[in-house]
Amino acid sequence: MSVIVRNVLLDGSASDILIEDGLIAGIGDAGMFRSRGATVIDGTGKAAIPGMVNTHTHAAMTLFRSYANDLPLMTWLSERIWPLETKLTDDHVYWGTRLACLEMVRSGTTAFNDMYYHVGATARAVKDSGIRGVISAVFFDMLAADDIEGAMKGARKQVKEIRDVRCPRATAALGPHAPYTVSDEAIGAIADMSASMGLQVHFHLAETKKEVMDYQARTGKRLVQSLDDLGLLSPRLLAAHCVWLDSDDIALLAERGVTASHCPVSNMKLSVGAAMPYVLMRKTGMPVTLGTDGCASNNGLDMFDTMKTAALLQKHATGDPTAMPAHEAFAMATLAGARALGIDAGEIAVGKRADIVLVDLHRPEMTPGHDLVSDLVYSASGGCVDTTICDGEVLMLEGVVEGEEEVLERAREAAADLFSNVE
Amino acid sequence: MSVIVRNVLLDGSASDILIEDGLIAGIGDAGMFRSRGATVIDGTGKAAIPGMVNTHTHAAMTLFRSYANDLPLMTWLSERIWPLETKLTDDHVYWGTRLACLEMVRSGTTAFNDMYYHVGATARAVKDSGIRGVISAVFFDMLAADDIEGAMKGARKQVKEIRDVRCPRATAALGPHAPYTVSDEAIGAIADMSASMGLQVHFHLAETKKEVMDYQARTGKRLVQSLDDLGLLSPRLLAAHCVWLDSDDIALLAERGVTASHCPVSNMKLSVGAAMPYVLMRKTGMPVTLGTDGCASNNGLDMFDTMKTAALLQKHATGDPTAMPAHEAFAMATLAGARALGIDAGEIAVGKRADIVLVDLHRPEMTPGHDLVSDLVYSASGGCVDTTICDGEVLMLEGVVEGEEEVLERAREAAADLFSNVE
Repeated sequence: MSVIVRNVLLDGSASDILIEDGLIAGIGDAGMFRSRGATVIDGTGKAAIPGMVNTHTHAAMTLFRSYANDLPLMTWLSERIWPLETKLTDDHVYWGTRLACLEMVRSGTTAFNDMYYHVGATARAVKDSGIRGVISAVFFDMLAADDIEGAMKGARKQVKEIRDVRCPRATAALGPHAPYTVSDEAIGAIADMSASMGLQVHFHLAETKKEVMDYQARTGKRLVQSLDDLGLLSPRLLAAHCVWLDSDDIALLAERGVTASHCPVSNMKLSVGAAMPYVLMRKTGMPVTLGTDGCASNNGLDMFDTMKTAALLQKHATGDPTAMPAHEAFAMATLAGARALGIDAGEIAVGKRADIVLVDLHRPEMTPGHDLVSDLVYSASGGCVDTTICDGEVLMLEGVVEGEEEVLERAREAAADLFSNVE
Repeated sequence: MSVIVRNVLLDGSASDILIEDGLIAGIGDAGMFRSRGATVIDGTGKAAIPGMVNTHTHAAMTLFRSYANDLPLMTWLSERIWPLETKLTDDHVYWGTRLACLEMVRSGTTAFNDMYYHVGATARAVKDSGIRGVISAVFFDMLAADDIEGAMKGARKQVKEIRDVRCPRATAALGPHAPYTVSDEAIGAIADMSASMGLQVHFHLAETKKEVMDYQARTGKRLVQSLDDLGLLSPRLLAAHCVWLDSDDIALLAERGVTASHCPVSNMKLSVGAAMPYVLMRKTGMPVTLGTDGCASNNGLDMFDTMKTAALLQKHATGDPTAMPAHEAFAMATLAGARALGIDAGEIAVGKRADIVLVDLHRPEMTPGHDLVSDLVYSASGGCVDTTICDGEVLMLEGVVEGEEEVLERAREAAADLFSNVE
């Protein structure tokens, strides 16, 4: 099955993009490729950009969207979120993730890095929605540090659950939650499992100052150095947040090839107290990507919003309006994200996976159109996305996603069920 | 001519809204009002909210959108923006403002407070677009401080230009630019004119620390106290930015009834170095509203984006996740803004002007829908707006704005003409 995107703006000129077997098979002048039974999409008045990659989220938490806001972090977690999470079922997670995938497809995101419960359900939602997910089961062990072996057995079982769904777009990873919820022993065991099984690791790192100070007080060791001693730091590690790091920490993370997922909206909303030290990271060459975080702390999954907020936050925090220019934010949201998740996409080039988004240029936000990337970062929103293609499959065509009504309805029902005994 | 919005979500229940002669004539249970030749809008699956009010912008600067970003403030102004502004014609400003109005209508804004050049053209654009504008001619006099009388004559002429357009939605105001571009003598004369003619004043106040320090160095007086001595501080003054103010300044502004227009996106993008002291302002009861600023420093006019960024910035700057909860940001964007501009709207109640926006709830961003206001502030974008009504006229119906293509095309032509000799 092949798709031709006809007469689309690509790198400044009108082009055709030929997609075959999930890959970008050809790029040429408009009108170059014969239709020969292909699905033809009219790209006139649209720009083709790589699908965006959201490197840190908890997709099923769409069900918690706007449930509890404007609260202190620990009140919010311990009184509002955690009690409900114990009630989650496969069905809740499946429909919550479908809702998240729908929102991502609508707003131009074609891949996400997830950490949550009921990973089999998440993998099925990824399969059925058509986008890509790197899926990890959230792993806490502070209360069960005496049974590392049992915990590792559980982690392996969850990897198997994801793989049993047999979807090439759904990749299993490991999800140790954070330094304050996972013991050093378990972190070491997970690092070993990641190395032996070649699995990516998804981890919350240095989100709050307290977590970094507490670790040092508890263990007598510096957090990042200790994680390296435990073997966790490697190119397989994707560390979300990375706010409270100093230059030594960053140098070590960069040396080990660790990727950061910057979540500016969540960091501001939860008042973590600082901006991720992006300028320092950039100097070391550390890969930096962008994430929305879950809907309970954002409350949306629009990567356009995250690109803009990332650029604004760096300018604000550094006092330098030239910090994180638009093209850097855009590269973080696309190519850097794809690399971090091991997806051969993030750019529109022959031979790459066909993860492509068409942005409608016939909108006031995109007019007069002096600079496409600046418009995308500073002026566009997910509402400007016209068509979304992932792995060569057309998931949204001119604003229409098949089956959207069912997803919205079933997600509403799942939320109603989950919240049925609350208040 | 009357309009009925049928079966729309209003304050938590399904209602009908009857609009007659530009006013909200009735609100009742769904199905209550007979059609009797009225235009009927199906509000099923939509929520009715007040039209948003953007209290600080330079609308025609849409033509500069994404032209020059990520530059230091003075380089940006002196090398990129100001040289082009000298070339502006009525035609540029008219189509730039039409483009801005289109973007506002699409994103649920029904009124804006403008300061720019060629005010007659702005007033005509307001008339033709259907929304409300408070229009002021930007006034600089540092080089002509010896001819205050001549300058005031010019200001009166510009007020007349706006009034000559004879549009009840276009209101004339005075627009002294800022303390660093307008002499004390001129500020005093403008304050007198504002009082005698009952005109609102639109002013940039304390956007940068430098401007505040420079004023004090130049005059030996504290900026805000000096403005009061000159008679500028009154309920007619709408002061944009208000970033670098201390508690004495705020107490005095509050006592005089001055309204602030907070522009968080612009402040962050231009790295003004601090967040507006909102918490302090709120304690004094000073009215605070929201503005996008012009498209050269934002780069869009979406008030949803501004509400979210305002709430995030306060949480980040204060370290308190409970700062500026969603309902406060929403009230700033609606009721407080309408009050500041002297519009009897900003809430949906019988007898108010019919400035009403319908938001589509059948979208992933608005699902599952635990809390409408939180969804609007933290998750929605302008793309969720379905229908926009201003002064009882339906300006956008189910995503369609009549004449949109012409506005986009003519605005592109105007930008091309303006930039034709650049580089």
